[in-house]
Amino acid sequence: MKSDNYFMDEAIKEAKKSLDEGGIPIGAVLVKDGEIVSRGHNRLIQNDSVILHAEMDAIENAGRLSHEDYVRCTLYTTLSPCPMCSGAVILYNIPKVVIGENTTLRGAENLLKCNDVEVVILNNNLCRELLEQYVCQNSDCWKNELSKVGNTTETL
Amino acid sequence: MKSDNYFMDEAIKEAKKSLDEGGIPIGAVLVKDGEIVSRGHNRLIQNDSVILHAEMDAIENAGRLSHEDYVRCTLYTTLSPCPMCSGAVILYNIPKVVIGENTTLRGAENLLKCNDVEVVILNNNLCRELLEQYVCQNSDCWKNELSKVGNTTETL
Repeated sequence: MKSDNYFMDEAIKEAKKSLDEGGIPIGAVLVKDGEIVSRGHNRLIQNDSVILHAEMDAIENAGRLSHEDYVRCTLYTTLSPCPMCSGAVILYNIPKVVIGENTTLRGAENLLKCNDVEVVILNNNLCRELLEQYVCQNSDCWKNELSKVGNTTETL
Repeated sequence: MKSDNYFMDEAIKEAKKSLDEGGIPIGAVLVKDGEIVSRGHNRLIQNDSVILHAEMDAIENAGRLSHEDYVRCTLYTTLSPCPMCSGAVILYNIPKVVIGENTTLRGAENLLKCNDVEVVILNNNLCRELLEQYVCQNSDCWKNELSKVGNTTETL
């Protein structure tokens, strides 16, 4: 049985892929019955997107799963998920989200909990360091991203 | 000054485009300062997607707008938006959503309202008829879509 840390390491690999592409280092993997079914990373910069957060990318890359598949999934993400990504988790009844860190940015964790999604925070230093280093080295880009979403982190 | 019905007619044109492509007839337009900035339609079937609902498609097609742009926008959608699309509206601080109909399916309207998004329901018969006719003629496909999302309509 692979551990939460094993899957978070895989999500971190995705975050690093984004960084290599010139993007924001946030990654995610979707796991069903202990096996990775899809991977994704933040593509806002490199794909000129506003919807391809890491979690959305992973969910999209899993293809059109059935309800029976989704309810056996756990979403691993290096950063606390925003309201859009949390909404996707709720829409597809993904029952559990494991979060690398939520100190750089805290997403819609209460929205997840209100909808009976299990939320686990790993407080993973590598997730935090990767993003903090990016923020430090790309402060204008990061400020621009934050300015787009205003104060919508943890709206519920 | 163009009316809500004018913009809903444009969203309906998008819904019909989806139908012509073999997809689910749900459409959306994003309007800023009384002008359409982007259009979108449901692409689940034709793009083999799980995230390209009409509203997500319209938001993505608008490109990387600024916070100042988003807060001047209204999203018009032929059907009540799901938790994912509502989450995107909340993330980007879009202050108003105009919904064609919410009887075929009721989305996360309370989630929008809880986050201070103005919600207007037009009870537009054409929106309803388009989708109802599709559901009637493609009941297996529609049931398959509904089964994916379980009971996540109006979760809050």
